[in-house]
Amino acid sequence: MNYFFGVDVGGTFVKIGLIDECGTVMKKGQIDTGKERGPEYMLDNIAAYCIESAILSGITMSDVKGCGVCLPGIIDSEEGVVMYSGNIEWHRINIVAYLENKLGVPVKITNDANAAALGEARFGAAKGIKDSIFVTLGTGVGGGIISDGKLIVGRKSAGAEVGHIIIQAFGEPCSCGSCGCFEAYCSATALIRDTKRAMEENKKSLLYQVADRQGHVDGKTAFIAEKEGDATAKKVVERYIAYLAVGLSSLSSIFRPEVIMLGGGISNEGDNLILRTQAKLDSMIFAGKIAPSVRVVRASLGNDAGFMGAAALNM
Amino acid sequence: MNYFFGVDVGGTFVKIGLIDECGTVMKKGQIDTGKERGPEYMLDNIAAYCIESAILSGITMSDVKGCGVCLPGIIDSEEGVVMYSGNIEWHRINIVAYLENKLGVPVKITNDANAAALGEARFGAAKGIKDSIFVTLGTGVGGGIISDGKLIVGRKSAGAEVGHIIIQAFGEPCSCGSCGCFEAYCSATALIRDTKRAMEENKKSLLYQVADRQGHVDGKTAFIAEKEGDATAKKVVERYIAYLAVGLSSLSSIFRPEVIMLGGGISNEGDNLILRTQAKLDSMIFAGKIAPSVRVVRASLGNDAGFMGAAALNM
Repeated sequence: MNYFFGVDVGGTFVKIGLIDECGTVMKKGQIDTGKERGPEYMLDNIAAYCIESAILSGITMSDVKGCGVCLPGIIDSEEGVVMYSGNIEWHRINIVAYLENKLGVPVKITNDANAAALGEARFGAAKGIKDSIFVTLGTGVGGGIISDGKLIVGRKSAGAEVGHIIIQAFGEPCSCGSCGCFEAYCSATALIRDTKRAMEENKKSLLYQVADRQGHVDGKTAFIAEKEGDATAKKVVERYIAYLAVGLSSLSSIFRPEVIMLGGGISNEGDNLILRTQAKLDSMIFAGKIAPSVRVVRASLGNDAGFMGAAALNM
Repeated sequence: MNYFFGVDVGGTFVKIGLIDECGTVMKKGQIDTGKERGPEYMLDNIAAYCIESAILSGITMSDVKGCGVCLPGIIDSEEGVVMYSGNIEWHRINIVAYLENKLGVPVKITNDANAAALGEARFGAAKGIKDSIFVTLGTGVGGGIISDGKLIVGRKSAGAEVGHIIIQAFGEPCSCGSCGCFEAYCSATALIRDTKRAMEENKKSLLYQVADRQGHVDGKTAFIAEKEGDATAKKVVERYIAYLAVGLSSLSSIFRPEVIMLGGGISNEGDNLILRTQAKLDSMIFAGKIAPSVRVVRASLGNDAGFMGAAALNM
């Protein structure tokens, strides 16, 4: 059996796993990024953890065939260079050469959303499916695309920026500096903004009571108040789902995937979100009656998708 | 030298060419579709024309390595079946088996926009470039995508529907039945609609005089009146270009192509359109300062792009 390391570098923690070629997790864990001590410190720790997890799993390094690393930001996969990763404040760091030297196995890198998409496609909700898209609805909107079995990353890995397709020309300002992006309507951040706006406009809304109980407004507030019968919350949720369907419809026009997987905090709404999004997507998707249907499902690997997909980069 | 047939089935004519592997056109011409006489009649005529053009070019059929056919509509390239082609009124016609039998060479099919994209990528404005997108601005908006050297067609070839990404959620109704599509803002049809609307709102606009001279309102009317100093026309053109940039920006977020080629009637505006679209795109594209730039150019093969790209399907 062949084994693979997968490394998912986040803002605070680095998740590291050792999996076999079937996706069985032999060992997983996490270490602090220690980002304030610089890239070499972090990479040394990653390499040490990898080697240790092989030893603890009784796997000799000759059976480990590669290491994949994913990070947020702009990653040049071909050159093996992290062009820019905001959370850990890296600029133009060549981590592939460094880690290959430490580990003695081939190292590949990609961004975190691409890795999660690959993880879900190989081992998760799209296992066995050649055309899938993963969309994460969290602080931002990210995602990754598998078309005809291949990860689509765009030129110099600078594409697959699913959250930055424009779904409302000249619309809400986006964190990226542009306007009207998918992310500006369908991130948790956008949902919180819209929930607060609706509260401003409807002072009697149940949203106030729900927010009081929660101690704050978050991505769940509108969903909870809607379930409790609040009409204002219902409007917020319906608008959110309609925009979500618009974004998924655009992606479907390009890739016509068999499956779109939703991940991230908002996807915890489960079937309430999934089924309503599917219905809305079906009502607007191109050539809905002729072309193959697109199924909306919930991603299944949770926080493991990143390191598992990173590991799959070398498979 | 190897040679290839390329066939571009339009609503009225079928363009047929014989090219070598470098893209040199040995012979080209067109025949009537004769669509009222059914598929077999048309396919027999196509096969006869192909064989004749090889003979007339002094090329033996053993040097012809394939035939590619492109058509408008929904084409299942894998199965070789035309699922639906509105112009010629075909439903579920397996043309690959039929033509292979007639010609004795491998036959592949794709839709017309994908073929044009491939033609431009192999022999035209994106020659030698691995990541390009072709967008045609005509009666509708169509296009094709080459990512990492490969034509992206989506699952069952039902993707790459560039004109049906949604750029304005819940916006203008589109011919596809959905709303807010790229096509509903950037086709010549949409530009004519918007020109007429602007005329309604500004009865003193120079647009009336230009339309009088032309005898009608078309995709050029606003561009002409703008050049003659009309403020209303300028607004129409600027709005058109802004929407065009929005659509191209979305496509760039997914594929980050090196080049986007504009074709179709509106692209005849040339640099006036190209340079202004480039400037607008640069102002809104994701990570414009960090990620690789995307160049907007005019497509170069004109009406030959389709059959040349079809021919390239077998290269």
